[in-house]
Amino acid sequence: MKNMKNIIFEHDKKIGFIILNRPKQRNALSLELMDELDNILDKISDNRDIHVLVIKGKGPAFCAGHNINELVGEKYNINHFRNIFYKCSKIMQKIHKIPQPVIAQVHGAALAAGCQLVAACDLAIADEKTKFSTPGVKIGLFCSTPMVPLTRVIGRRNALDMLLTGRFISASEALKFGLINKMVNTRILNSETQKYAEDIAQYSLKVLEYGKKNFYKQIEMEEKKAYDIAKEAIAKNCLFKDAQEGMKAFLEKRKPIWTDQ
Amino acid sequence: MKNMKNIIFEHDKKIGFIILNRPKQRNALSLELMDELDNILDKISDNRDIHVLVIKGKGPAFCAGHNINELVGEKYNINHFRNIFYKCSKIMQKIHKIPQPVIAQVHGAALAAGCQLVAACDLAIADEKTKFSTPGVKIGLFCSTPMVPLTRVIGRRNALDMLLTGRFISASEALKFGLINKMVNTRILNSETQKYAEDIAQYSLKVLEYGKKNFYKQIEMEEKKAYDIAKEAIAKNCLFKDAQEGMKAFLEKRKPIWTDQ
Amino acid sequence: MKNMKNIIFEHDKKIGFIILNRPKQRNALSLELMDELDNILDKISDNRDIHVLVIKGKGPAFCAGHNINELVGEKYNINHFRNIFYKCSKIMQKIHKIPQPVIAQVHGAALAAGCQLVAACDLAIADEKTKFSTPGVKIGLFCSTPMVPLTRVIGRRNALDMLLTGRFISASEALKFGLINKMVNTRILNSETQKYAEDIAQYSLKVLEYGKKNFYKQIEMEEKKAYDIAKEAIAKNCLFKDAQEGMKAFLEKRKPIWTDQ
Repeated sequence: MKNMKNIIFEHDKKIGFIILNRPKQRNALSLELMDELDNILDKISDNRDIHVLVIKGKGPAFCAGHNINELVGEKYNINHFRNIFYKCSKIMQKIHKIPQPVIAQVHGAALAAGCQLVAACDLAIADEKTKFSTPGVKIGLFCSTPMVPLTRVIGRRNALDMLLTGRFISASEALKFGLINKMVNTRILNSETQKYAEDIAQYSLKVLEYGKKNFYKQIEMEEKKAYDIAKEAIAKNCLFKDAQEGMKAFLEKRKPIWTDQ
Repeated sequence: MKNMKNIIFEHDKKIGFIILNRPKQRNALSLELMDELDNILDKISDNRDIHVLVIKGKGPAFCAGHNINELVGEKYNINHFRNIFYKCSKIMQKIHKIPQPVIAQVHGAALAAGCQLVAACDLAIADEKTKFSTPGVKIGLFCSTPMVPLTRVIGRRNALDMLLTGRFISASEALKFGLINKMVNTRILNSETQKYAEDIAQYSLKVLEYGKKNFYKQIEMEEKKAYDIAKEAIAKNCLFKDAQEGMKAFLEKRKPIWTDQ
Repeated sequence: MKNMKNIIFEHDKKIGFIILNRPKQRNALSLELMDELDNILDKISDNRDIHVLVIKGKGPAFCAGHNINELVGEKYNINHFRNIFYKCSKIMQKIHKIPQPVIAQVHGAALAAGCQLVAACDLAIADEKTKFSTPGVKIGLFCSTPMVPLTRVIGRRNALDMLLTGRFISASEALKFGLINKMVNTRILNSETQKYAEDIAQYSLKVLEYGKKNFYKQIEMEEKKAYDIAKEAIAKNCLFKDAQEGMKAFLEKRKPIWTDQ
C-alpha cells in the first residue's frame, strides 16, 4: 500500500479508510487514481483485520466524477474511453465483491461517477449539506455508468429525474430517495461514520463476508431461486464456529468471541 | 384444522385469522409450529369462504424468529438445519401462492424470521410501538433467508443497513422503508386490521386470486414479458362472470353480487 | 397529425404536448383515442424538433381509464378484449421507446389505465388535489395491465395495497410512493410542467435519446450485464459531437451549441 499519490489509506482497529486525495481536483477519478483505488481494494480484500471499509474524500468535495481533461480532445479514440469506463466499472463492481461492508462517507458534492461511487457502496452516510447529481446530460455525456447502481438503489422514477434533468439533489432528498442511509450535521460526520462502522466491525468478518456475498448473489434472482440460494446458505451458516459461538453466547447472555471461522 | 398446539385459527365472515400461539417463546417458529402453519395454509388455500387471511401473534411479540434452541448444539448436522430453513422458506413462499391476500398484523417485535414473515405477507399493518430487526449478524448467523423478501420489499439500501448492523428499526422507519403499509396506535390495531381486511374481503375471491397470482407471476419478469402475461390475463378477466356483473353494477350504480366465477 | 378527434397536439419550441380531449368521458381510453395516441407517438418519435413530450388531459380529470362501455356486454368476445388491451399495452411500451423523455402532467384523477399511463411515462408531475387509483378489483376486473408499470415504479408493497383495496391515494401519497416526481399547487401546474420540460428540452436530443434508450435497456438486467452495456455506451458517447462540444463548452465556461449529432 505504498507509493500512492492520489489516495491515503488508514487502518484503525478493524476499520479501513480510503481517503481520496486530490482535493484541488475535487477528487476527480483520474486514471491514476482509479489504478490506485483498484489496487488498494485488492489488498483490503485480503486483509482479515479489516472488517469495514470507509471511503471518503479530502477537501471540499467527496468526488466530482471523472477527470474531464481525460475525456475531451480529438486525440482520444474509443479505446482510450473504453479504458477509462471499463476500469471505473470494474472498481465499482469490486466494491460489492470484497468481503468487507463498504460505507461511503459523503460531504460537499458527489457528482457523476462520484454519485455512482456513493450508490455502489453498500451503505452511505452524508453531511446534510452535500449535493448529489448525475449531470452528464448537461455536457452531452449521459451518466450511463452512474445510472447502473443509481437505478438499483433509488428506483427508476427518481433516477430518471436525476439523469434527465442533471439537477442537484440535496442530502435530504438523497435520504428520502434511499441514496444514503443517514444524514448528519457536518460537525459530527466523522464521529457518526466511525460509530456506524464500529457497529458493523464488531461482528465476525466471516459472517459479514458470507452475508454480503449472498446478498448480492440473490438480489437479482427470481424469488424462488433466491430462496434456494438463501436457505442452503443459512443452513451451512449454522455450522460456522462463529455461529455456534454466537448463539451460545446469546443464550448465556455474554459477548461472543469470534474466530473468523 | 384440529389438534393444533402452536396456532389458533379463527374464521369470521370472510376473514381468516392465524394466531401464532407460543406467547412465552414470543411465537418463535419451532419446527412444530412451522408444520402446523404449513398445514393450515393448505387448508385455507382450499376454502372459498375465506377471502382474506390475517396473520398475528399472541402475547408480547408478533414473532421473534426461529427457535434458537433448535439451532445451537453439536448434536445437529446439516440435514437438521436444512430441514428447518427449507420448511420455513416453503411456508414463506406459500403465502404468495394461496388465493387469499395475506395481511401481517404486527405488534411488539418482528425479528429475524419474524421480520421475514412480515415481508413475505402481501400487506402489513403494525402497532406504532413495534420494533423490527434482522439481527442474525449479532449471533453469527446472517439473516440470509429473511433478506430474500426483505430486499424485494424495502430495496437494497435499507435492507443492507438492517442486515449488516442488526439494529432495531421503529414502526415509523418500517413505514418509510415500505416494510409496512400502515402504522396505527396500539389501541386500534385490531379494529384497523379488521377494516383493512374487510375492505378487501368484500371483493370476488376469484378476482383477488387471479390478481394476486398474476401479480407475483409478472413482478420479476422483464417489462415486455410482464405485459405479455398481463394483457392476456386482463382480456380473459373480462369474460369472468364477476367482471361482467361488476361492470354492469357499476354502470347501474348498484352493488355487485359476486358468484366467485 | 390531422383529423384527430380525441387528441389535441401542440408543439411549442422544443416541447410537444399531447392533450387527451374527451373531457366529458374524463378522457377514457376508447379504442379510437388509443389509435390516435399510437399514431401521434409514431410521428413525435420521428420529429427531431421535439425534445420533450408532455401528456395531459382536458377537463376535470387526467384520465379515468378504459372506456367501460367497450368492456361490458355479451356481444364482446375474447378477441375484442384482446384488441383493447394489446393496443393499450403497445402504447404504454411505446412511451419508453420514443426518443423524447415523456412527462405526465396529472390533475383531477388518474384511474386504472389512467394511473397506468402516469406510471408508464418517464416522469410525472401532479396537481396536489389529484387522486390516483387502480380500482379494477371493485368491478371484478383486476388492474393487471396497470400493475405492470405501477409495480416497477412504486414497488410491490404499495402496489399491492393499491391493487387489492382499489382505494384512492392522494397526490402526497403518490409522491411518497414515487409514482410522481413533483406535486404542485393547481394554479402553477401548467407553469411548473413547462419549467420541468424546458429543463430537459435544452439538452441535445441525441444525448437524451441515447440515455433514455440505454436506461430502459439496462434497468432489468443483472448488474454485471447492465455495466457491460453501460460502459460501452458511455465510451461511445464520448465520441458524439455533442459530447465533445458539451465538455469543451463546460471547460470554456460557455453555453454548448448542440447539433443533434
